Amino acid sequence: MKVITKKIPFSNPLTLQSGQTLSSFELMTETYGELNSERTNAVLVCHAFSGNHHAAGIKDGDKKPGWWDEIIGDGKTIDTTKFFVVSLNNIGGCHGSSGPTTISSESGQPYGASFPEVSVRDWVETQKILADHFEINCWEMVAGGSLGGMQALQWAISYPERIKKAAIIAASSKISTQNIALNEVAREIIKKDENFHNGDYLAQDKSPSKGLKAARMLGHITYLSESNMSKRFGRKLQDPENKMDADINYEVENYLQYKGEQFAKTFDANSYILMTKAMDSFDPARDFDNDLVKCLQSTQAKLLISSFDSDWLFPKEYGLDIQMSAIKAGIDSTYIELDGDYGHDSFLFYSDQYASALKNFLNSNG
Amino acid sequence: MKVITKKIPFSNPLTLQSGQTLSSFELMTETYGELNSERTNAVLVCHAFSGNHHAAGIKDGDKKPGWWDEIIGDGKTIDTTKFFVVSLNNIGGCHGSSGPTTISSESGQPYGASFPEVSVRDWVETQKILADHFEINCWEMVAGGSLGGMQALQWAISYPERIKKAAIIAASSKISTQNIALNEVAREIIKKDENFHNGDYLAQDKSPSKGLKAARMLGHITYLSESNMSKRFGRKLQDPENKMDADINYEVENYLQYKGEQFAKTFDANSYILMTKAMDSFDPARDFDNDLVKCLQSTQAKLLISSFDSDWLFPKEYGLDIQMSAIKAGIDSTYIELDGDYGHDSFLFYSDQYASALKNFLNSNG
Repeated sequence: MKVITKKIPFSNPLTLQSGQTLSSFELMTETYGELNSERTNAVLVCHAFSGNHHAAGIKDGDKKPGWWDEIIGDGKTIDTTKFFVVSLNNIGGCHGSSGPTTISSESGQPYGASFPEVSVRDWVETQKILADHFEINCWEMVAGGSLGGMQALQWAISYPERIKKAAIIAASSKISTQNIALNEVAREIIKKDENFHNGDYLAQDKSPSKGLKAARMLGHITYLSESNMSKRFGRKLQDPENKMDADINYEVENYLQYKGEQFAKTFDANSYILMTKAMDSFDPARDFDNDLVKCLQSTQAKLLISSFDSDWLFPKEYGLDIQMSAIKAGIDSTYIELDGDYGHDSFLFYSDQYASALKNFLNSNG
Repeated sequence: MKVITKKIPFSNPLTLQSGQTLSSFELMTETYGELNSERTNAVLVCHAFSGNHHAAGIKDGDKKPGWWDEIIGDGKTIDTTKFFVVSLNNIGGCHGSSGPTTISSESGQPYGASFPEVSVRDWVETQKILADHFEINCWEMVAGGSLGGMQALQWAISYPERIKKAAIIAASSKISTQNIALNEVAREIIKKDENFHNGDYLAQDKSPSKGLKAARMLGHITYLSESNMSKRFGRKLQDPENKMDADINYEVENYLQYKGEQFAKTFDANSYILMTKAMDSFDPARDFDNDLVKCLQSTQAKLLISSFDSDWLFPKEYGLDIQMSAIKAGIDSTYIELDGDYGHDSFLFYSDQYASALKNFLNSNG
């Protein structure tokens, strides 16, 4: 599999949905496979909340492969011997694209909390600029899970003529009140960390890592299913030799402590806040009298909508709602509820059923 | 309704389940109605996680009545013209009974984090000592919701001959891995507050109120149902005039901020940690080869087990599990799944169905 990792600068100003402008921006990208001469075999994969451009393969020095490595690769579900797969870190992120950790050309300091608000629509705009850069006129498929699935849906709405298929996985056309509430708790935890300094921690050489850790611990619970946690950890007590903290009793506590701590080392707190805000505000039907059917009316892409049975963060009702609206809008669409052992996170992992559904969709006539 | 609020000192040492000893302790109590001359009309109500002794009526200066005021009172479900209702703040709490905010006679300082670990069994022990104090030989009923329901269940197990009926509402015989995980996140948030000082914040005249607030915000989400939050707040934007914080967008965020802040003013962080630990460790079947049937074998009380359809923290499977074990153990028991608009918190509120179930149970022959 040919892999190219590249940071690509764009010098034209970008006006965001909020009205704010980035005078220029950079996208950290990774591509897998090769673009054919007709430029018709391109697939865009969009990352979820804490993902990045590194979707497949193992990089030097890393222990873990890319976030969708079980799906993308030579001979895999998204077969890189056939397709040219484009992945990128979204703006506002913290893995190389312009975001809060980027040095602002105006102040000479990291943007920090002053990095403008971004939205799912903004991400699709930057991805469209990236498609232009690659001279890809039409994606064979745009695919993603969770917040990535929202981008796939937004693509179908924003650029009907530039996308043949959208795979909207474990996603929704807007998140629930409960999800907004959970995101608000995570933001509260981060912002009240003594080292947050109103978001300007980098300029002060500090890191709100305790807040980021606890926020991720909470997130992690919502990404897994109750039954998965129960099967995996039950009420097993933690081996005292390997406690992350003296007060820990149960294995599940230790696991969350570990996961939270690892995450806090690699993620940026302002990005966490920006990404959750983008998730909260995603609601494409809002501009169409809150009518998703109207909103989907000009869509031309074929849609695959799938949910996982064990996902309580984005349960199947969300997927079914998109499917029903697509049917009413007369769009070619299919819905599938998949077995998934990992709750919301199931979209990251291979299963025969999941791979078949995605593969058939990608290889079907557009 | 006759109401007596009284702090009662007990001078005998109390050995706790952990093996630690309290040389003496106090219980803050409140009683409603009058004990009959045969001393046979007593009902014990046990509070949930953040409750206290004040279960019914409105106290001078308070805006809100006691936590179960919709259920307890003259002519109400638990009718105080017929029954003598005893309520107390559990030890480890922060509303008058011995707990982390109590001054230790040994150090002359508040106990703080050095207050010993308490368990549901310990609470039942102190409640038994309180029954002795009132010369109540046998409770007509012990009732409670959530953590209070666990105490009712423990009473039926610990003192079969001293309880006629146990109403175990929105509770379980042990909490799930997911619930332990959520409790651990709450503890993590509190303990990493810059003002926590390893639990000795009182001695330093500090309060980890930011951590306590965020922990409560999280708790609050789990107490409500998704559908309730959705109906009540949906995706409504917050009126800018009344924002708790400039970054708030949605009403639900503002509501949680407000609720969290109010709670942090009245609750103690060490109590929060102690109470969640008591909830995590409750598992009476553990001493009976993890067999709840065996554990219930010597129980003589009649059991009412009820769950609420909208409760996702303690879903009906928990209630059904107790019921099935009770049936196998040959115990007189009844299970009811109730409609509840408020998720887990439904146990606090009156509904015709709920009140009928509880009233019929209380007035049935024991």
